[in-house]
Amino acid sequence: MAPAAVPVISTSELTVSAIKQDLSKAAVKPQLDASKLTYTFNKSPNTVPALNDPIRLEQNSTTDHMLTVKWTEKGGWEAPQLRPYGPLDLMPTASCIHYATQAFEGMKGYRGVDGKLRLFRPDLNSKRMTLSSTRIALPSFPPEELEELIKAFVAVDCAKWLPDPNTFIYIRPAIIASGAALGVQKPREATLFIIAVLFPPMDSPNGLRLLASKEDMGTRAWPGGHGWSKVGANYGPTLQAQGEARERGFDQILWLLGKEGRVTEAGASNFFIVWKHKYTGRLQLVTAPLGDKIILDGVTRRSVLELSRARLTHQPSEIRREVQHLEKVEVVEEDFTIHDLVEAHAEGRLVEAFACGTAFFVAPIAYIQYVDEGIDVPMTAATEDGGKAGPYASAIKTWLKEIMYGRVQHPWGVVVEERGAK
Amino acid sequence: MAPAAVPVISTSELTVSAIKQDLSKAAVKPQLDASKLTYTFNKSPNTVPALNDPIRLEQNSTTDHMLTVKWTEKGGWEAPQLRPYGPLDLMPTASCIHYATQAFEGMKGYRGVDGKLRLFRPDLNSKRMTLSSTRIALPSFPPEELEELIKAFVAVDCAKWLPDPNTFIYIRPAIIASGAALGVQKPREATLFIIAVLFPPMDSPNGLRLLASKEDMGTRAWPGGHGWSKVGANYGPTLQAQGEARERGFDQILWLLGKEGRVTEAGASNFFIVWKHKYTGRLQLVTAPLGDKIILDGVTRRSVLELSRARLTHQPSEIRREVQHLEKVEVVEEDFTIHDLVEAHAEGRLVEAFACGTAFFVAPIAYIQYVDEGIDVPMTAATEDGGKAGPYASAIKTWLKEIMYGRVQHPWGVVVEERGAK
Repeated sequence: MAPAAVPVISTSELTVSAIKQDLSKAAVKPQLDASKLTYTFNKSPNTVPALNDPIRLEQNSTTDHMLTVKWTEKGGWEAPQLRPYGPLDLMPTASCIHYATQAFEGMKGYRGVDGKLRLFRPDLNSKRMTLSSTRIALPSFPPEELEELIKAFVAVDCAKWLPDPNTFIYIRPAIIASGAALGVQKPREATLFIIAVLFPPMDSPNGLRLLASKEDMGTRAWPGGHGWSKVGANYGPTLQAQGEARERGFDQILWLLGKEGRVTEAGASNFFIVWKHKYTGRLQLVTAPLGDKIILDGVTRRSVLELSRARLTHQPSEIRREVQHLEKVEVVEEDFTIHDLVEAHAEGRLVEAFACGTAFFVAPIAYIQYVDEGIDVPMTAATEDGGKAGPYASAIKTWLKEIMYGRVQHPWGVVVEERGAK
Repeated sequence: MAPAAVPVISTSELTVSAIKQDLSKAAVKPQLDASKLTYTFNKSPNTVPALNDPIRLEQNSTTDHMLTVKWTEKGGWEAPQLRPYGPLDLMPTASCIHYATQAFEGMKGYRGVDGKLRLFRPDLNSKRMTLSSTRIALPSFPPEELEELIKAFVAVDCAKWLPDPNTFIYIRPAIIASGAALGVQKPREATLFIIAVLFPPMDSPNGLRLLASKEDMGTRAWPGGHGWSKVGANYGPTLQAQGEARERGFDQILWLLGKEGRVTEAGASNFFIVWKHKYTGRLQLVTAPLGDKIILDGVTRRSVLELSRARLTHQPSEIRREVQHLEKVEVVEEDFTIHDLVEAHAEGRLVEAFACGTAFFVAPIAYIQYVDEGIDVPMTAATEDGGKAGPYASAIKTWLKEIMYGRVQHPWGVVVEERGAK
């Protein structure tokens, strides 16, 4: 049927034009380079809405600028541009809107009690974004260059939006396959961008109500999948079930896996419990392990584990003063099932539960529904912002806030020197 | 921390502004309505590239127009617009580029030997798109309205691009969460669009070489996931492995599932084999079943099954003349593993294998690599376009082409009356 002049194609669906990357040339292509950043400032800057402005509830108020960097397979990384916030120039054939060739990060910029601007462990977000990007067939880059770009963006764009101490702004680095080409194939063009979004305060003073997923609500992640990475494909498929949960009066889904009901994540957050172990009777802080790549390697998750190991696992006499009233815990990354949780609750061994993630921070869980079983999770401590939580979540939350808002100096709280948009 | 005037929020990550849909109002919101279509014609139309123009290899040459329809939770469906092809107006906060809130369809417009323009079973694509859309938390709509819109788009926009009989154009209906709102929540705004892309001929005269996936290459779909639907989240996560396969000289991945190595799909196509059953010795045409929603309910897959059941399962004397030289087959939707396939090959029971899907049509498989095991798949028949295939794939391919290109009149070949862009 095809005229002889048409190249004979023997590759699979929509992929005839795939060109093998010339790896020898790839080595000399320009890498992502933060030092090449150019600045074009917004001449019509917006005003900063008050903290109680309802516009923040919409979570679509952005700042004056965005930072963009284009990558092509042929030419490598172009010079990053900080420029006025505005629409992306995407054609209807862009791979990212058809094949979910997209990955992102979530982090916050904090205005400290000392007036300084801080990021929280931006090195971890930057490293994770390289991993997510390559998982979804988008390009790799040196994570320290992304970290520098995030800092440069925050220095210019975010300072103005955080006039008050103890406030934060949400920062979203993302990378998308932006090229116009409908082939189901490894993208040959991408755009990395950084934007910032104004959020309302997101405290959960009364604790979250979770609905444990049933099989017909879907599965968030699977062995061999991509649950460990921050790719868009982990999120959209959960929203239908999330919407159903909302309609039934729950805040989020507690995602279970497999017939055994492994507890994995709560909504888009990691999930922790504190319980007394069934056999040893020892107090444990438990979360699902990263081993089989189902669980997101959350920055807050990691920080909770590290702080808990440093500050909660010793003998009471060695424990930090502010938690000396608490029993020491074992910090454990191990699988557990919803049945273990139901049993622990029934036997009075469940001490507390909380979700954690960047956007939602450390959020105590008040209630979990599993089929006909209701689990009232204890929340016996007061938090510094006037809500309730479990005593361990409360302590951990305070420690993290101290670092984020500069009440203590800590290597995780990375100060960014402000620079005006001028 | 939060001033008292800020609403207290007790929902989960990034979802504070979720508003419950008022279902009583939803009922009276405007539905998708093809009769409201408005036309704005392109005043700078492009010229049609020759069939052998290399530009077709890029798969990013589009036509003069696109059709777009906006939906909002508040206002329902707006009037569809056929308008000049151009960029989508997406903000960097659009849900579709962060959370894979996107679904699509793939179909073709055919220029028949009788000069008529045809679609192939557009009702099936339209129905599947409503299912994919709701799976990814996007709105539902009456599938027959989408079908009418596809026909209207093809009538105006595609005719010009198919000057020659026996040619096709690729049509891509899609729906994306286009609203500017970064919350991880059910989208409140969406855009449905239809575009057409010029493809090169995509025949595989020598058969495809498949690499069976190993666990470290990922899993395409899983129980409780969304493999059955055409959501973007099924595609991006496979591209890294696909790229690796290409670099090793294969055309596509044969996706296996679980430790038992269930054979699911080939690349983004359904996968069929013909073999002699191990115990009964009977000839079977086998493909994986739809039961647990892992396998895409492909239009070509369904058509292959229906045609085979109608024309290949009878006694030889009742079989259609053109396949009277072939033995009758049982047509079976049943799970089988890569080990079954290896064994069948070793025992000389493997007759043929082929992939099928809209873009790639019916593509014979020549070779499958599983770890250290190589399976040379027989391709004993000549196809009408001068290539090789298994005898059953060859017959099925011919039957489908007859319908698509109007060599026979069949209800699956739906004629679209042309209407110029004027």
